[in-house]
Amino acid sequence: MNLPPHTASSGAARSTAAGTLADPDTPFAVVDAHRMRRNIDRLATRADGLAVALRPHVKTAKSLGVAAFLHHGTPGPITVSTLAEAEAFADGGYTDITYAVGIDPHKLPRVLALLARGVTLRVLLDSAEQAESVARASRRAGLPVPTQIEIDCDGHRGGLKADAPELVEIGRILHDAGCLDGVLTHAGESYFAYTAEEQRLAAKNERDTAVAAAERLRAAGLPVATVSVGSTPTAHAAEDLTGVTELRAGNYVFFDLVMAGLGVCELDDLALSVVVTVIGHRPEYGWLVTDGGWMAMSRDRGTSVQAQDQGYGLVADLDGNLVPGLVMTAASQEHGTLTARDGADLPDLPVGTRLRILPNHACATAAQHRGYHVIDGTRGTDTAPEIEDFWTRVTGW
Amino acid sequence: MNLPPHTASSGAARSTAAGTLADPDTPFAVVDAHRMRRNIDRLATRADGLAVALRPHVKTAKSLGVAAFLHHGTPGPITVSTLAEAEAFADGGYTDITYAVGIDPHKLPRVLALLARGVTLRVLLDSAEQAESVARASRRAGLPVPTQIEIDCDGHRGGLKADAPELVEIGRILHDAGCLDGVLTHAGESYFAYTAEEQRLAAKNERDTAVAAAERLRAAGLPVATVSVGSTPTAHAAEDLTGVTELRAGNYVFFDLVMAGLGVCELDDLALSVVVTVIGHRPEYGWLVTDGGWMAMSRDRGTSVQAQDQGYGLVADLDGNLVPGLVMTAASQEHGTLTARDGADLPDLPVGTRLRILPNHACATAAQHRGYHVIDGTRGTDTAPEIEDFWTRVTGW
Repeated sequence: MNLPPHTASSGAARSTAAGTLADPDTPFAVVDAHRMRRNIDRLATRADGLAVALRPHVKTAKSLGVAAFLHHGTPGPITVSTLAEAEAFADGGYTDITYAVGIDPHKLPRVLALLARGVTLRVLLDSAEQAESVARASRRAGLPVPTQIEIDCDGHRGGLKADAPELVEIGRILHDAGCLDGVLTHAGESYFAYTAEEQRLAAKNERDTAVAAAERLRAAGLPVATVSVGSTPTAHAAEDLTGVTELRAGNYVFFDLVMAGLGVCELDDLALSVVVTVIGHRPEYGWLVTDGGWMAMSRDRGTSVQAQDQGYGLVADLDGNLVPGLVMTAASQEHGTLTARDGADLPDLPVGTRLRILPNHACATAAQHRGYHVIDGTRGTDTAPEIEDFWTRVTGW
Repeated sequence: MNLPPHTASSGAARSTAAGTLADPDTPFAVVDAHRMRRNIDRLATRADGLAVALRPHVKTAKSLGVAAFLHHGTPGPITVSTLAEAEAFADGGYTDITYAVGIDPHKLPRVLALLARGVTLRVLLDSAEQAESVARASRRAGLPVPTQIEIDCDGHRGGLKADAPELVEIGRILHDAGCLDGVLTHAGESYFAYTAEEQRLAAKNERDTAVAAAERLRAAGLPVATVSVGSTPTAHAAEDLTGVTELRAGNYVFFDLVMAGLGVCELDDLALSVVVTVIGHRPEYGWLVTDGGWMAMSRDRGTSVQAQDQGYGLVADLDGNLVPGLVMTAASQEHGTLTARDGADLPDLPVGTRLRILPNHACATAAQHRGYHVIDGTRGTDTAPEIEDFWTRVTGW
């Protein structure tokens, strides 16, 4: 077991055990490993049913400890959002990695260094100028950089439309250098698909667009090995992925209030929370004050555009049971404000009471922490849940 | 000089020099040391004129490298937001520290450990139950924990009203244990004081409230050594701090778009920015896409409630000159979207172009980074600004 500093309260007589959620100084992030494994199994089963490979995006947890559960304990295919992740996961034995952010040519030396180590690291691009850079770097190194062309299926951010005139030209530049691997798209707008039907349509559109782009390249005589799609909402809504070779999703390992608001998961699937302590009372304003502010939760307010705005997060007790009506409604750097809504009474929680805050956006909240204290949510306890492990996060770029 | 991993592009023939802002892989945070020193000097001069000690809040930069400029190169009085900061700054020779977040009794062992090392670490509280905990722990350790009573001057978050009945009772509990140091207040609502006059009134109210609380304690026979006030807006607006012993502010070392929107600083005072790279173009949407998303900028959108919403940030070139009309309007984890406003043309910036994004909220943006590449903004250069140093940040709690 690998424990961070200040995990055990120095006042307590304790052996080498990690203790319980009552022990580390707050705030700190907790992963409920039972819920996490259930979330991972759910999507793995879906991908099997859809006959596509699953390439989880590790950008949410950024943790080898979490990733160990993605492919039954062995390093399998993953997606990363930074080269720092690619390097850390390569060090951990992962050899099949897609770096799913449009490549900055300045970063190609680090890509080539990973390829030279035997890691299959794929990069992404959507312009001829990037393709020329990749082709040039590959020829110079004598090492073709496997490359996917980013396709825009919903106007979310980067990518080419499937019918863009440049698509075939880019494919040819890559193919001539031995670099063309395939196409990739991400239905980022599915985060705003508020019904199951809209999510199914987003998944169909994501699949149709990627396959159409692949077919255009193939019709031009360019081989397309990989047709990659995915986002957490569409991965859980897709009904037919014919022509798709792999599915990506990241958030699903933890889920969060945004995903619960979309109906992609239930509140009791949320595997990440932040333990905070009550440090004050402001009865005149109807507030409880905690030591968990935006530094612990992030500034993410993803639910603010949903039907039910969940503030900075819902509040649970240390065992994970929601405290009815209690919401974290404001945050400063190291202070959180909890208020009651829907006519609920503000509960009587003395200074020192520990609570768990369920986040809007797991990716953003997780990024505020060095790692995760891990509990096994299946065990009933009379005392606070026991800490089983500590999983560190990869940081930086 | 202390450089982080991946600072120099591995492809270039280069000596041990840190290179320029064109070298490290993006995104990364940059501090313009010339602007920072100017900001630090400005408030130091103000505090001298107001005849109060300055106790800068190091929660913004969380960096010994930055802090070295606060008190002419010697460790002086500071404010911290976490015990991790207190411990790191104690290791760096700082012995006069105020921990300005209401104390969680569970953290007292770490407070006592710092006191036992000879660090004067003051804690903050606003309830009798916390005061009893501090008194008990102090007696048990034979080491009185110097304690300030938090006063609420504007309904921002924690604290007691200056006329709260409990004030004197809390003061007496602390005094009887040898722990009473004074009172502290923070005009957090001054971040929403949109005119110079409102800021002056907020500063007057902050001072008047703290002094009134101190006088109530003194009238009850309780000695009050410290009367501490401050926030970046009120510290720059206060005209009379009679009865106040010290002024706190944190954000002012870097400033940011929120402070510029309040008129507390000018845009060319902003000392923190994030270097990003153009990785794509979406002319059909009027977008430039960069590799700096919310992971690099944070999700903070503090200017969204100001007269001029600055999106996720304004855009400057690598030398720090603003690109007219260009704004970072959207962010995903590792993607930023830049758009033109006010009829400005989208500039023609090829893939690979580096830009600097000025943040909404320096405290939140800085927190996304391991440290700061430091440039000396006074030097004219034909090439990109030279990197003079790398200053690490304190992380965690």
